[in-house]
Amino acid sequence: MSLDDVLARIDADLPAATDRLLDLLRIQSISTDPAYKAECDRAADWLVNDLQSLGIKTEKRTTPGHPMVVGHLDGDGPHLLFYGHYDVQPVDPLDLWDRDPFDPQIQDTDKGQVIRGRGASDDKGQLMTFVEACRAWKSVHGTLPCKLTFFLEGEEESGSPSLVPFMREHADELKSDLALICDTGLFASRVPAITTMLRGMLGEEITITGANKDLHSGMFGGPGINPIRVLSKIIASLHDDTGRITIPGFYDGVPEISDELRAQWEGLGFDADEFLGDVDLSTPAGEQGYTALEMIWSRPTCEVNGIDGGYTGDGFKTVLPAKANAKISFRLVGTQDPEAIRASFRKLVQDMLPPDCTVEFKDHSCAPASSTDTSDPAFAAALRALSDEWPDNAAYIGCGGSIPIAGLFQNILGTTPMLIGYGKDDDQIHSPNEKYDMESFHKGTRSWARVLHALTNNV
Amino acid sequence: MSLDDVLARIDADLPAATDRLLDLLRIQSISTDPAYKAECDRAADWLVNDLQSLGIKTEKRTTPGHPMVVGHLDGDGPHLLFYGHYDVQPVDPLDLWDRDPFDPQIQDTDKGQVIRGRGASDDKGQLMTFVEACRAWKSVHGTLPCKLTFFLEGEEESGSPSLVPFMREHADELKSDLALICDTGLFASRVPAITTMLRGMLGEEITITGANKDLHSGMFGGPGINPIRVLSKIIASLHDDTGRITIPGFYDGVPEISDELRAQWEGLGFDADEFLGDVDLSTPAGEQGYTALEMIWSRPTCEVNGIDGGYTGDGFKTVLPAKANAKISFRLVGTQDPEAIRASFRKLVQDMLPPDCTVEFKDHSCAPASSTDTSDPAFAAALRALSDEWPDNAAYIGCGGSIPIAGLFQNILGTTPMLIGYGKDDDQIHSPNEKYDMESFHKGTRSWARVLHALTNNV
Repeated sequence: MSLDDVLARIDADLPAATDRLLDLLRIQSISTDPAYKAECDRAADWLVNDLQSLGIKTEKRTTPGHPMVVGHLDGDGPHLLFYGHYDVQPVDPLDLWDRDPFDPQIQDTDKGQVIRGRGASDDKGQLMTFVEACRAWKSVHGTLPCKLTFFLEGEEESGSPSLVPFMREHADELKSDLALICDTGLFASRVPAITTMLRGMLGEEITITGANKDLHSGMFGGPGINPIRVLSKIIASLHDDTGRITIPGFYDGVPEISDELRAQWEGLGFDADEFLGDVDLSTPAGEQGYTALEMIWSRPTCEVNGIDGGYTGDGFKTVLPAKANAKISFRLVGTQDPEAIRASFRKLVQDMLPPDCTVEFKDHSCAPASSTDTSDPAFAAALRALSDEWPDNAAYIGCGGSIPIAGLFQNILGTTPMLIGYGKDDDQIHSPNEKYDMESFHKGTRSWARVLHALTNNV
Repeated sequence: MSLDDVLARIDADLPAATDRLLDLLRIQSISTDPAYKAECDRAADWLVNDLQSLGIKTEKRTTPGHPMVVGHLDGDGPHLLFYGHYDVQPVDPLDLWDRDPFDPQIQDTDKGQVIRGRGASDDKGQLMTFVEACRAWKSVHGTLPCKLTFFLEGEEESGSPSLVPFMREHADELKSDLALICDTGLFASRVPAITTMLRGMLGEEITITGANKDLHSGMFGGPGINPIRVLSKIIASLHDDTGRITIPGFYDGVPEISDELRAQWEGLGFDADEFLGDVDLSTPAGEQGYTALEMIWSRPTCEVNGIDGGYTGDGFKTVLPAKANAKISFRLVGTQDPEAIRASFRKLVQDMLPPDCTVEFKDHSCAPASSTDTSDPAFAAALRALSDEWPDNAAYIGCGGSIPIAGLFQNILGTTPMLIGYGKDDDQIHSPNEKYDMESFHKGTRSWARVLHALTNNV
């Protein structure tokens, strides 16, 4: 089958493909906020309709949370599965957006055209690169070159609570030869890459309560316990002066990377000054003794994602608050055990509680880190296909983010994940003014056509 | 002149006096929130009208903030000034109120009738005890027994920014023989008291900024600095393990109380277990080596009144926030210098800032502590008058709160302040469901009549 015809069709169809993506971006599918439940549903319906238009037998499958979209196409060749997610992050602080996050727009910038809007990069734009590659292939060849399963979820940005039960229940249906996942980026916004190391993630929310109500800091200041001070002390204790995390057992299962891998990463020419400089930072703030790239790809972290307590409005209120709350997350590497760390963290918090204070814990996401064995020849074939599309040769890289699905394919289904994505460092995912470069969208779509071609001739 | 006739008139007029107070409580005069500016104005107008109906020549006097209400009545005898404030605290968290905070109501409780609503105790109810005492006196005797000045402000709950300039500008007009202030409480909700020691207050707001925008904690977690962690570390460093405040020079001017005063306070029979037990606490959390009462009356504090940063909505968001904010206040004693402490605090914060972080400071209230010389015979006379009204004998006490006006009368006008109030510990001032006991309102009004009688026969 001719790859060139497919690539030409992708080029010709780019304006229409862009319109389809804009359409999907207008749906406010914020999964973490219950107020947007119907919008998540609407995004799932949109994808079901679109995949059905490609002849893929697709259904919206209910879960206790937001629905899964699952589609199948029978065919010859290897059985490939494609995974992406249609949900997006919340948009606050809204006043830092230059425009309505859900009124997406094509904008001309110094660096070329961009698609601006929440989800443009993470993950609707990325997801649609694969869909558009399939559309072009189907339109040129009347069929696709393999047996194909689509598996799209709507809870990735809120810890994927329904994912594991769904994968377990439908393991036979979802098992495949290779799982393609499009939720990662180019290296240094330039080098096409297959991500082979992903950090895991553990989310915890703690609420510390002192008195049974907010108190007057004049009347009770002194003998009255202050939960904000208690919480601050706990947070301050989670790192030592060298940036190491102090939770007992936290570093169990954290490997030092091999000299070989370190040398390979150094060869990538990662510019830490530029990476940090883009966001007005200059000094890597993580564990001493590691490069910025090692901090992101190979070291675990503990971060406070939100804190809240007492009077936070305009002006001043001399209140001794009854409660203080923090959302704390851990990025995990190697074989760190999220559940063991959760237990150790909770014990540390409990042990630090002074008299009269209680703590309430809330579970959030929990997934171990994952790393992929690249000895399967499909990996070398995909690497070559990517190198054909982009100016730079493709590389195996790590990723600081957490894409739990990669580990789950491996552990639950026994299917090797292959993570390929076209996001750039300045896409501002999870931040105001998120965008996806038109180059990412266009060359990303072409890349998938090349990878499909390579895998179906090689796997 | 007959005191008994005045007391009888107060008793007979109680229902009408209560209705007047309810009327004033309906005005939403929250001074710290600019949204309620017109309501503060309305409260000032209400008081101007009411005082004018007593024959007191009263004006609303503009300031850069909320207006002052100043009234004068010529007369024989000593020149007394009365101070109170018509502004109130914000009402959040609104969902913890049993009813609309500005729809006040008389309620029957196990402990007797209460007036429920924001400001019922702090300070509208207290303020009106003096006004009602004057009304009864005027109605019985046709005049008041002294030269009288009313001085009512509307910014007490927001740091009184206009107070000092106004007092300086109008010092000649406001100078008097004695300044009566009604913004304090009964001791142990039972013992009538003249408050002779008040803590000072210093308010600081700090905002720490790291990156130029919120970041993704997967992409930047490790090398990216987290302002919430920086802020938590600063807050945690402000106290040592014994509860002492670590800011250099903070304890300059903090006196140890005399053995005599300590013995007198012990004689008051303060029940720390009950005081803390009322709000579900049991262990005095302040500096080791001091009783709970000493912590409140004679020791300085540093409290965090509010903290805010990152994602604080429902669910979870793996953000590395760009900013974190805290409102921090200090209660001061003895001759602690608020400006010196502000400077030392800011230096400590600056010195703790890691690379790539900046801090912005915002001033809030600033007033030194004050203590009153009780050798003037007016104090002994007032103490006797209070003892006549209440079952327990009156006492000189301290107060953990900050009523900057007391020190200002002394320092700017050279006028001795006399602080008498009838609030109870369970009034829930600054908290949801604030109330003022009908007993406080009724016996408070009677107490002022007795004090007026005693002062005008003795001063």
